[in-house]
Amino acid sequence: MNLENRLSRLYQSLTEKELDGIFISQPENRYYLSGFDGSAGYLLITPQHKILATDFRYLEQARGQATDYEIFPITNDLADWLPRLTADLGLKKLGFEAGHISFAFYRELTDILKPSPLNLVPLSGLVETMRAIKEPAEIELITRAAQIADSACAHAEQIIRPGISEHELAWEIEKFMREKGSQALPFDIIVAAGLNSALPHARPSPRTINLGEPVVIDIGARVSGYSSDLSRTLCLGKPDDVFNKVYNAVLGAQLAILAIMREGMSGEEADGIARTVIEQAGYGPAFGHGLGHGVGLAPHELPRLGKGATEPLVSGMVFTLEPGIYLSGWGGVRIEDMVVMAKDKVNIISKARKVMT
Amino acid sequence: MNLENRLSRLYQSLTEKELDGIFISQPENRYYLSGFDGSAGYLLITPQHKILATDFRYLEQARGQATDYEIFPITNDLADWLPRLTADLGLKKLGFEAGHISFAFYRELTDILKPSPLNLVPLSGLVETMRAIKEPAEIELITRAAQIADSACAHAEQIIRPGISEHELAWEIEKFMREKGSQALPFDIIVAAGLNSALPHARPSPRTINLGEPVVIDIGARVSGYSSDLSRTLCLGKPDDVFNKVYNAVLGAQLAILAIMREGMSGEEADGIARTVIEQAGYGPAFGHGLGHGVGLAPHELPRLGKGATEPLVSGMVFTLEPGIYLSGWGGVRIEDMVVMAKDKVNIISKARKVMT
Repeated sequence: MNLENRLSRLYQSLTEKELDGIFISQPENRYYLSGFDGSAGYLLITPQHKILATDFRYLEQARGQATDYEIFPITNDLADWLPRLTADLGLKKLGFEAGHISFAFYRELTDILKPSPLNLVPLSGLVETMRAIKEPAEIELITRAAQIADSACAHAEQIIRPGISEHELAWEIEKFMREKGSQALPFDIIVAAGLNSALPHARPSPRTINLGEPVVIDIGARVSGYSSDLSRTLCLGKPDDVFNKVYNAVLGAQLAILAIMREGMSGEEADGIARTVIEQAGYGPAFGHGLGHGVGLAPHELPRLGKGATEPLVSGMVFTLEPGIYLSGWGGVRIEDMVVMAKDKVNIISKARKVMT
Repeated sequence: MNLENRLSRLYQSLTEKELDGIFISQPENRYYLSGFDGSAGYLLITPQHKILATDFRYLEQARGQATDYEIFPITNDLADWLPRLTADLGLKKLGFEAGHISFAFYRELTDILKPSPLNLVPLSGLVETMRAIKEPAEIELITRAAQIADSACAHAEQIIRPGISEHELAWEIEKFMREKGSQALPFDIIVAAGLNSALPHARPSPRTINLGEPVVIDIGARVSGYSSDLSRTLCLGKPDDVFNKVYNAVLGAQLAILAIMREGMSGEEADGIARTVIEQAGYGPAFGHGLGHGVGLAPHELPRLGKGATEPLVSGMVFTLEPGIYLSGWGGVRIEDMVVMAKDKVNIISKARKVMT
């Protein structure tokens, strides 16, 4: 974790926005900027002070993990400590995470800080934008998480058989990943067969997997907080004609964007390229979600690849490319890889084999 | 799920607050009021209409689960659909969940609804307060989740041995609960031995468990969305004198509050009773968290039992009673049961045995 570099980028943002400090509440951002991975606490960062405020349950852990920070013990009652702390620090303009702090929490903040001359400034995605570009050490952890998912996918191909339930296969995959070193999974595994695979976010059910139907498997592991995300679609036995047509359209869209992607392309452009392939195959409306999303400390984070995502994708960003086609009454196909943006191409992180039909 | 009863209680609250409708965004509340357990969507409930607005990924699931609702397909862009919908419904005063909606989301809402005469009214804990009192069917599910945790605790007692790591024991417990029918666990298992047990929210580490030291085990299962929560503290071999003294103080505090608890007592009173026992044993400052919390669709929900919780606890509430003592440089002891409030006593839901030293 290159904390010094992260903090210097943060200070630069504070200067640009003419802020004295920033109040961090979002859990992944708190970890990213301090190394503390407890589930409660706030960072108060100024150019002179780095304070981690947390309660009794986490004090020992905080002292052990956030060694660059002053650890400040707090109670649940903000009024007990926050006004005094902001006054002691002489803060005039404090940024806060408007996308994370609830409206009720905001009202409490303004209420207890009212007597002070402090100005609260809503910030949107400041640390999330920093997190979108990964350091080499972060890519290393994501790659390890991807390797676990890759080997779990190979394991799934070995044990899948007609008559196994979605639920049973999902649990076998989960056990495999945990025993290969994954932390608690970043998201619930999807194993969706037949009609269920038409639901992009299906949940594994007791339904058994049968010959000739699509089986969407969407899995991720987690290593030192960093996630992976991988989808493959299998078919046991002989696929029907729809499967071949749909599968080839999805695979074609994915191979096209993998080949065409360049630094500087926007998420909307990338999405449009993949979407065009699927539209030309006659399945346009059946690709109802975006092309992909960033992966890191959160399994879904910046950048976003889809309509309205006009920011350029730049080197060091890690994201998924996951076109899909979903046909109600038949099923679905999704193929998803994680890539890291390089200068004139993307490097594919996930290595699980893709069936070519 | 007694949806009719839940909605009629909700309508009553709307009438009391003179609201035309309510906008529900909090995931457990969305499930509680609709039966839809997808991870994205909003409810818009008026006395005349029950609308579930969700995106492409969840439409099929929503139609299957929220059969009492009109399913309204939406995009990510609120401006696309919300102003039109609230205008069509003729809404003038719409409540929203101020503790869940972010400040940024609130600003977006006010912005896109500005041209309309709609008044947004912040609500605090309205559905959460309803959820605190459980229906018999909910207590049944919580009890099933508790039984899984109970049997996992007995399993842990069988397999624990000097030399097993915290991490290995935690994973054996997790596998056991999942294979006994638990859904993905509601919270990460705590297995904390020796010095680690002084951290109330410790994370299982590669550290091995040794003879004579405290081992705190804090686990929960989940059945049909409902959680359980259970803690026990074990010691392999001969405990030291501190262990006996600390354990008996915690057990005494818990047995006292289990015996004394009556409907109408507040969470603060209950906390005070348990705290007094621990203070009298000389460990007052070492009981640094509240006595307990509600358990249901969320593993931590209303009611709260601790300082400042002045509301009376009433029949049908399900909550934990979990005094603890944490001594930095030695370790900790926590004993936690789930109970359901009855008229003149609490009924204990968790049945895992407690070692009497």
